[in-house]
Amino acid sequence: MVFDSLVDGGHEQVSYFSDPETGLQAIVAVHNTTLGPGLGGTRILDYETEADALTDVLRLSGAMTKKAAAADLDLGGAKAVVVGDPEEIKTRELLKAYGRAVDCMGGRYITSVDVNSSVADMEVVATETDHVVGREDGLGDPSPITATGVLSGLKAAVTYEYGTDSLDGVDVVVQGLGKVGSALASDLVDRGASVTVSDVDQDNVERFVADHDVEVVAPDDVYDEPCDVFAPCAIGGVINDETIPRLDCDIVAGAANNPLADRRHTAELADRGIWYAPDYVINAGGLITVAEEYRGGTRDAAFEKATAIGDRLARMMERADDEGTTVLDAADAFARERIENADRTTPARFD
Amino acid sequence: MVFDSLVDGGHEQVSYFSDPETGLQAIVAVHNTTLGPGLGGTRILDYETEADALTDVLRLSGAMTKKAAAADLDLGGAKAVVVGDPEEIKTRELLKAYGRAVDCMGGRYITSVDVNSSVADMEVVATETDHVVGREDGLGDPSPITATGVLSGLKAAVTYEYGTDSLDGVDVVVQGLGKVGSALASDLVDRGASVTVSDVDQDNVERFVADHDVEVVAPDDVYDEPCDVFAPCAIGGVINDETIPRLDCDIVAGAANNPLADRRHTAELADRGIWYAPDYVINAGGLITVAEEYRGGTRDAAFEKATAIGDRLARMMERADDEGTTVLDAADAFARERIENADRTTPARFD
Repeated sequence: MVFDSLVDGGHEQVSYFSDPETGLQAIVAVHNTTLGPGLGGTRILDYETEADALTDVLRLSGAMTKKAAAADLDLGGAKAVVVGDPEEIKTRELLKAYGRAVDCMGGRYITSVDVNSSVADMEVVATETDHVVGREDGLGDPSPITATGVLSGLKAAVTYEYGTDSLDGVDVVVQGLGKVGSALASDLVDRGASVTVSDVDQDNVERFVADHDVEVVAPDDVYDEPCDVFAPCAIGGVINDETIPRLDCDIVAGAANNPLADRRHTAELADRGIWYAPDYVINAGGLITVAEEYRGGTRDAAFEKATAIGDRLARMMERADDEGTTVLDAADAFARERIENADRTTPARFD
Repeated sequence: MVFDSLVDGGHEQVSYFSDPETGLQAIVAVHNTTLGPGLGGTRILDYETEADALTDVLRLSGAMTKKAAAADLDLGGAKAVVVGDPEEIKTRELLKAYGRAVDCMGGRYITSVDVNSSVADMEVVATETDHVVGREDGLGDPSPITATGVLSGLKAAVTYEYGTDSLDGVDVVVQGLGKVGSALASDLVDRGASVTVSDVDQDNVERFVADHDVEVVAPDDVYDEPCDVFAPCAIGGVINDETIPRLDCDIVAGAANNPLADRRHTAELADRGIWYAPDYVINAGGLITVAEEYRGGTRDAAFEKATAIGDRLARMMERADDEGTTVLDAADAFARERIENADRTTPARFD
């Protein structure tokens, strides 16, 4: 039942909203607001069961708490799901009803884009509540800022592993040339790295190689390419039992969410002498951007905060070395301790 | 599941709050806020299952919407349950955590006393939120105001049935001499009614008869006592298949909550030529008092609004006559129409 799930996950609150007129069925999960209001996107999905929707929103909101805490933001973790096939349900009136639901959270939940919810959708939501970020008039495309954060983390890992401040001649394989992957690859080339790229979409590859001095590897061979750093910037789950034995690198550091198929794979990478830079630590640039937008800050400030990711990752790597754990464990501990040491009572009030 | 229950009951929102430190597990149900923020008490009960707790809080919050609408208040309906044995769980820290949960509702929910939650408990809750009524420094004991409302309804029913403005010589049986029942009986005596009282607690009876000129009937015989008005002011469920054939009265109008064992009993009373004044219409004085407290009004204003109950009941009786329905149906229609005709969108914002 609901309470067991809340207790298991350490969640403060889960709220169900229903609006028969528009058919809105939304669940907002607030995981932890010790550090500030919970920020997390709105996922619109046709879940098979209500229990699936609850499980997903609880899991996602918990991940946001960790990500915000690890990014040194004064934000908590929350997330929302709107249940239904977006093609069928996503009317202007439903999005407005959803905006009122967000507003009912009284500022404890700040929403944004996520799977099947767009910036344009958020503009409709914003007609009913102020607690929306990722707006049209926000701080602009977060992808370059995310790429900057990943680059900062990647550089810190290189420095920690090789004792050099420079990326000159460092071999990096970038998997995926979407908005963040291509920005990262471009940044890496600019800094003198020796970059190899790969994408399942040949158009993306052709567009990128036209302007950049990089090597190309076929998508199927990307895991076998010897390199210093493997940077997964495409889909999740690519670090798994099948690919780990093929990897010939010292560092895994990319922009993709959930690149590990399972948490145990971080230990398996460590056993093979491969550092894993936790995804939620180094790909937090997008969250940093919308957090900055919410507090009325600037794009420059967001770039600056994303650049600070490297220093934090370096401290986590040191800690992992000191304590004989993985960097992921050290990152989790850093996030947990920020919350535990905060002077707030849960569920925190947000006035 | 939760959404089905929300859709079935027409509820806007249900929020679960968990606080592992104090063990707090609370469910707040907001039924309808079209007319204003949802007001309803906090019930602390050791429900057998979480599903039982949800069912109860949904049912109770829906009843509050109807009651507030029928009382012509600018309030919606809501309710909360705190799950657990009050003897075991009710610590100061848990009540404070609950107060923060209430505060998280952002003013959409206003709480108050209910089963196993006291005015003293609400004082603790109020250290964490402003959205509490029934305070120590509120408008004082609501019982006389509730009694005034019941009396107003009873008089209106008498006027409608007998065409007389006076209670002089009208035979009224008052079942239950608790705070409201004794205040009502006393008011009735003052207005010249011929009052017969009954209570399962002999001390209550003796205390009352010492000061008032009334007849007494044994608790077991109360349904057989011929009278004009039977006023149930004790427990619920007293109007049932067993007692209806015994009743020898023209009007049932009292302070008790849920005197009907089942909704169908209102029709069975009607078939026997007995008017039933809906409980939630005529016993709304307590709700009127805390609503007045919340808006910073006076005790006098609460008495005045409770006195207006009679006029509303009279219009409902007329409508029942016109439409060939029961007064309960007419009351439900009045409440529903107030909400339907309001210029608000659900779920309403409360700023």
